Amino acid sequence: MAVGEILFMVLEIIGTISFAVSGAMAALEKRVDLFGVIFLGITTALAGGILRDVIIGKVPPTAFADSNYMLVAGITAALVFLIAFFAKDYYKNNVEVVDGINNVFDAAGLGVFTITGAKVAMYTGHLSNGFFVVFLGMMTGIGGGVLRDLMIGEIPLVLRKRVYAVASILGGIVYYQLFWHHVNDTVATFIGAGVVFGMRMLATIFKWNLPKAFE
Amino acid sequence: MAVGEILFMVLEIIGTISFAVSGAMAALEKRVDLFGVIFLGITTALAGGILRDVIIGKVPPTAFADSNYMLVAGITAALVFLIAFFAKDYYKNNVEVVDGINNVFDAAGLGVFTITGAKVAMYTGHLSNGFFVVFLGMMTGIGGGVLRDLMIGEIPLVLRKRVYAVASILGGIVYYQLFWHHVNDTVATFIGAGVVFGMRMLATIFKWNLPKAFE
Amino acid sequence: MAVGEILFMVLEIIGTISFAVSGAMAALEKRVDLFGVIFLGITTALAGGILRDVIIGKVPPTAFADSNYMLVAGITAALVFLIAFFAKDYYKNNVEVVDGINNVFDAAGLGVFTITGAKVAMYTGHLSNGFFVVFLGMMTGIGGGVLRDLMIGEIPLVLRKRVYAVASILGGIVYYQLFWHHVNDTVATFIGAGVVFGMRMLATIFKWNLPKAFE
Repeated sequence: MAVGEILFMVLEIIGTISFAVSGAMAALEKRVDLFGVIFLGITTALAGGILRDVIIGKVPPTAFADSNYMLVAGITAALVFLIAFFAKDYYKNNVEVVDGINNVFDAAGLGVFTITGAKVAMYTGHLSNGFFVVFLGMMTGIGGGVLRDLMIGEIPLVLRKRVYAVASILGGIVYYQLFWHHVNDTVATFIGAGVVFGMRMLATIFKWNLPKAFE
Repeated sequence: MAVGEILFMVLEIIGTISFAVSGAMAALEKRVDLFGVIFLGITTALAGGILRDVIIGKVPPTAFADSNYMLVAGITAALVFLIAFFAKDYYKNNVEVVDGINNVFDAAGLGVFTITGAKVAMYTGHLSNGFFVVFLGMMTGIGGGVLRDLMIGEIPLVLRKRVYAVASILGGIVYYQLFWHHVNDTVATFIGAGVVFGMRMLATIFKWNLPKAFE
Repeated sequence: MAVGEILFMVLEIIGTISFAVSGAMAALEKRVDLFGVIFLGITTALAGGILRDVIIGKVPPTAFADSNYMLVAGITAALVFLIAFFAKDYYKNNVEVVDGINNVFDAAGLGVFTITGAKVAMYTGHLSNGFFVVFLGMMTGIGGGVLRDLMIGEIPLVLRKRVYAVASILGGIVYYQLFWHHVNDTVATFIGAGVVFGMRMLATIFKWNLPKAFE
């Protein structure tokens, strides 16, 4: 396998694990049972990639053809369930810590899937259409989280959180620009995903405020 | 028409009617008007099949090309509305019976659409990929119900109910195994759908409990 | 460009602006920040067309390939935000007027996208299948609004409002019939979209009541 393919696979695995953790933790908040936790972990992990593949006409989507994605997501979600089960007192009494952990995994998934979405757009003949590359990156990045939030009856984070879609868009733009400036792809990937992740973390830590029309 | 085609059509009709009933009953709970009941009945009945067809690249999906699906679903939903209209006192005072009836139709739709999804995967060149067959079966089976629940603002049954996605997965595995053991397809279909339906009913009747991490 | 193409583009722009206004206003109701308003404006404006293109197998959908749609929607939503920001006292104290304005834009988007959906079905080889034409028109028309309502945690208007999907269906049928009666396409387009818009307005003004099974 070429370096690019290995890198892509590693990204997919990191993103899948990150969103599986985030989906499983969201399900735990709603007090669903073991299967509910696994189901929402898998759904959150796979939805972005399935959406991405349908949008570019890659059917059936990779997540259907290759069982490893679901396997990785399901095992991850089951582990999250087990940890919550054995640390239930800590889990219930430290909501802020738990939310913080969930936020980190959500940001990691957003960053990594943004770049895989951008790469898929570039691999499939849309290299010259920067808009498409960045848009598909964003859809891939936010898709899983939007479905996760809809499934548990919450207004999606992408509408409520500071700098969510914008972090994904900026990371996509940075990655795309680095590509055209002939930066090594592995380096560009780390920087691109890092921009997304870093912006989400900074927005959380410093509570970046964006204007509202009114309260 | 071959026996397999007739069987497939019969399954599609049973699934369409079952989910149209279930969607219409869910809409009635939300006190929407006649058109709302028909709309949610149709949506619930068609969504799983549309999702299935998009996933395998069959566009336009069958439900768009052939008006019979919508016609069957719409008439079914209108009949449910009429029954509720004329039996409104009974309907409002026997919530448990009504929920029980809805549960039976939901389980029937889940069972039948699980098998049609599996069949479509097997017909379209994925015969050797058991994972794909079972996964597409599950998506087809749960798709309508998930959309129904999101539309009425509820957390989807698949997250809340015991043994929901798992029933679909087990039914799909049984059907796929029977196929490879050369069991007659009509028999295998009945057994596969029956496993899904039976597991849902048993889980409801005996209130099978799955572990939760915490309450 | 042929007259038909210009007309189609104009319709797409009107529909995009209308739904961007409607999505932005819905987001304002939920007190999300500037980016949330822009995001939901764009989502509402693009979702119907993306759904339409996926259904007919046009991938990637036009809204991904051509950045103008997102640009128009984003600028529109930002303007709505600015107006609400500078007129916040009026905005908060005149909920009925604001709801009325939103309703008009929602109806305009529904009317215009219903016809673009019907046209796309007719352009792509489904001219003889009136059911498909009308169904795709309805999906295109209601898609954006359904996603908008799900994102803000509301039961979609299409389930709650009088004569919503039905207005779209009737407008689609009228347009399709006028086509077969060789009426000039621009005229037919105006009449078709006008039927949808007019029915929604009349239903709102006269509070048309449809039967409910019970309250």
